[in-house]
Amino acid sequence: MTASTLWQRYQDWLYYHEGLSLYLDVSRMRFDDRFVESMLPKFEQAFAQMKDLEAGAIANPDEQRMVGHYWLRDPDLAPSEDLKKDIVETIEAIESFTRNVHSGAIRPPNAERFTDVLSIGIGGSALGPQFVAEALGADAPPLTIHFIDNTDPAGIDRTLAKLGDRLSTTLVIVISKSGSTPEPRNGMLEVQNAYQQKGLDFSKNAIAITGRESNLDRLAKSEGWLATFPMHDWVGGRTSELSAVGLVPAALQGIAIQEMLDGAREMDIATRAPNLKSNPAALLALSWYFSGDGKGKKDMVVLPYKDSLLLFSRYLQQLVMESLGKEKDLDGNVVHQGIAVYGNKGSTDQHAYVQQLREGVPNFFLTFLEVLHDRAKSSIEVESGVTSGDYLSGLLQGTRKALYENDRDSITVTIPEVTPRHVGALIALYDRAVGFYGFLINVNAYHQPGVEAGKKAAAAILDIQRKVVEALQQEKTPIPLQTLAINVGAPDEVESIYKILRHLAANDRGVKLYGDLSNPGSLTVSAF
Amino acid sequence: MTASTLWQRYQDWLYYHEGLSLYLDVSRMRFDDRFVESMLPKFEQAFAQMKDLEAGAIANPDEQRMVGHYWLRDPDLAPSEDLKKDIVETIEAIESFTRNVHSGAIRPPNAERFTDVLSIGIGGSALGPQFVAEALGADAPPLTIHFIDNTDPAGIDRTLAKLGDRLSTTLVIVISKSGSTPEPRNGMLEVQNAYQQKGLDFSKNAIAITGRESNLDRLAKSEGWLATFPMHDWVGGRTSELSAVGLVPAALQGIAIQEMLDGAREMDIATRAPNLKSNPAALLALSWYFSGDGKGKKDMVVLPYKDSLLLFSRYLQQLVMESLGKEKDLDGNVVHQGIAVYGNKGSTDQHAYVQQLREGVPNFFLTFLEVLHDRAKSSIEVESGVTSGDYLSGLLQGTRKALYENDRDSITVTIPEVTPRHVGALIALYDRAVGFYGFLINVNAYHQPGVEAGKKAAAAILDIQRKVVEALQQEKTPIPLQTLAINVGAPDEVESIYKILRHLAANDRGVKLYGDLSNPGSLTVSAF
Repeated sequence: MTASTLWQRYQDWLYYHEGLSLYLDVSRMRFDDRFVESMLPKFEQAFAQMKDLEAGAIANPDEQRMVGHYWLRDPDLAPSEDLKKDIVETIEAIESFTRNVHSGAIRPPNAERFTDVLSIGIGGSALGPQFVAEALGADAPPLTIHFIDNTDPAGIDRTLAKLGDRLSTTLVIVISKSGSTPEPRNGMLEVQNAYQQKGLDFSKNAIAITGRESNLDRLAKSEGWLATFPMHDWVGGRTSELSAVGLVPAALQGIAIQEMLDGAREMDIATRAPNLKSNPAALLALSWYFSGDGKGKKDMVVLPYKDSLLLFSRYLQQLVMESLGKEKDLDGNVVHQGIAVYGNKGSTDQHAYVQQLREGVPNFFLTFLEVLHDRAKSSIEVESGVTSGDYLSGLLQGTRKALYENDRDSITVTIPEVTPRHVGALIALYDRAVGFYGFLINVNAYHQPGVEAGKKAAAAILDIQRKVVEALQQEKTPIPLQTLAINVGAPDEVESIYKILRHLAANDRGVKLYGDLSNPGSLTVSAF
Repeated sequence: MTASTLWQRYQDWLYYHEGLSLYLDVSRMRFDDRFVESMLPKFEQAFAQMKDLEAGAIANPDEQRMVGHYWLRDPDLAPSEDLKKDIVETIEAIESFTRNVHSGAIRPPNAERFTDVLSIGIGGSALGPQFVAEALGADAPPLTIHFIDNTDPAGIDRTLAKLGDRLSTTLVIVISKSGSTPEPRNGMLEVQNAYQQKGLDFSKNAIAITGRESNLDRLAKSEGWLATFPMHDWVGGRTSELSAVGLVPAALQGIAIQEMLDGAREMDIATRAPNLKSNPAALLALSWYFSGDGKGKKDMVVLPYKDSLLLFSRYLQQLVMESLGKEKDLDGNVVHQGIAVYGNKGSTDQHAYVQQLREGVPNFFLTFLEVLHDRAKSSIEVESGVTSGDYLSGLLQGTRKALYENDRDSITVTIPEVTPRHVGALIALYDRAVGFYGFLINVNAYHQPGVEAGKKAAAAILDIQRKVVEALQQEKTPIPLQTLAINVGAPDEVESIYKILRHLAANDRGVKLYGDLSNPGSLTVSAF
């Protein structure tokens, strides 16, 4: 393609959202008109399905649930007055609670003001809040945020050590829809214990974001926590950033949540256009489908050229892979769908794996994320007439060009600045694109059966652990692992039992292994 | 495969390093004996090639360089007395400098002690130090580390804002082999400017890690910086963590660098064994080769089940993809090699993309990284007989098992604790595995021609920018982009010029665009 043909293609396909000053360029995806035409009927159907979804149809058939995260940014669209009222009142409650925390009207028992926020949640209850904190957090926020997003004891200890004496002025947010997901439940118990150890009353520092009438909701109410905010069953974890899950931590950090909602609403309106070329989410879905043949044959590499957007790729990794990575389609056919997503930030990654992108396995397409505004103040020149920001911009352009010339396709999204409004718009753009793509490939983009399966597999291991520890109490002398496995009625689980014992022994948990560690089958074990 | 066959396979293939108490389990990679036998001649050759490399052969033919990072942890192996002396003296110099900084013998002009370290570097000069800081940083280190690893003005401003008045007690490390890589050069100029703005003398707070006689080396010497440490041309960026590049920042944070070197040396000894089954790096290379058919057909997903190892996947992403992602093999054949690497941490990712790993596109294999020791203190029970750490361990086991049963292969590396010694060992294990794999697929694993190409493409853009700005000064009225392109002698670069102008206009850099922004071809431009 000649330079002038390419420039024409750029203009032909350029999407521009005037209100948001947002550009989407799909001209460097090598689809042709025939491909686009062949996709039009699929998009007609996807537009209709999306309309039904927004009107309250059961879009998540496995769980018999409506999918309503679009209503959060435009409550007038909610399918009932009750739902609308609920959404509006929740946002009011968040804003009022935040005002009171910032003013000191709501304060910790022993101090004038809360200083820090500790958010305990995992998956959708962590990635959105982390992405937004990194993207939009002020240099000196009213409250400084910290996260516990795992059940790693050392990780929890590190976060608590960082808080130190400020634990007494920390507002703890426990986020869990059911209240029974192990990781946040464990995080909560560990943090509760830390408060207790310091003689502090956890309930006077805690709020819950959870499903109404969940275990956590009942606990928070019975213990008199400072507040609870709802998680609705029509909002999935990975699209919950603009529900209480994301809005509460953001508001507490002083981030303008109404602007985030506004940006998302503006983008939602744009992505309702039932016309491929003027719908940026449809253009994304089209590009993804083209690149991976509708089967995820290529990975999506996400490169924001802005440090504060570093976590956008992790946010998208969850959104895309958990939504689309499915074994079966909606008709029950085995399809093994999905699109793998990874990336960090440009131009940093230029000095890491872009070497492979440029020259190596061509198993990916790129998404560049460009931010036009460089910084708040003016810039020094690092060379005559050139600033650091010009370099960042030049490196993006240069990399895009070099990769294209090497037959590596790319999409470029351009926003003017990293503001709450634009972050809201990006979130909305991508969740709609994932929705469309889900319709195109006919999968349920709103459930996650594999997560449940992993939880069950872990529970089975812990069940064996309990039995093993109990059985060992009965033994006077060390016994072989195989014998122990038979004794607990799990003769096929010797390897699992070995792993359990190795972990218990490493933590002085009353178990000792004897023998040659390089030969696990020869080991014997006792309680001591 | 029955449970007992699988348990036997686990034992047959288990690698155990007694000194390091490190396990490597490749039993869940589905290779058979025939495959292993077919690989033996390739490994014989790889072992021989590695021996030559360590003895000082030119292993990076494009750049006519020796590859000597193994000598860093065992200077006796260096091929000459001069090199040996250099390595030993550098480590001594680092330790002596660090002692003096910690004691206050070396201190900032206006205070008793340095409080913070600001490390400016990109790629290999950032990822290793970042990984090690996260893995091994103490809760209250003698100096707190910060990084500038990009040329993003807003990112630089955020880091400087975080330092605030502590800039005067910050020790700045500028890391750049040539001194001319734009990102660290720009970072240095921005930071220098920040010192100047505050009336501080940058040179009294700065050290350089750079090639001898590089631009940066000369600058540091002429300005009288506090110290300079060498970057050797026989150490590549991505294997430089155990050179001054990684050791200086680590030592300043109070991390035991000698232990890191010891761990790496112990692992180096193990990975010299010319025998597949007893060489853990060879077992990794074998597994990678099997999974991706020696062509990178599958992505490597890296899941450390430990918060502090979060950045290990990014570290490996660079190490693996930059080393192996090559267009041509050593005979000049076009091969488009590499292995894509991504991942964050378990069990957190279980609630993100593990849904897709379990059910979706089977285009990957996993590497689990297990840490046996949970935490420094003892644990509370989160359920009867069960701790948070048991959950982490159970989730790892459960996920590994569930994925294997779904035909997803995995490797598991187990270490007892996250110590400097084990981090050193992990670094050494993987850089040797990458070296072996490079020999197996016959690529130069020690150069990165694509990085240079990206740099050139960016320079070309900045060159056009300069011309465009100059040309616009000559115009009295707005002119079309196409005319401007012709005026600067780049009629084919209208799109690049449009992007340059859009960026300049967004930053009030004396350029104004007129017309319909959604239709770039119609725009006119003037200097104003």
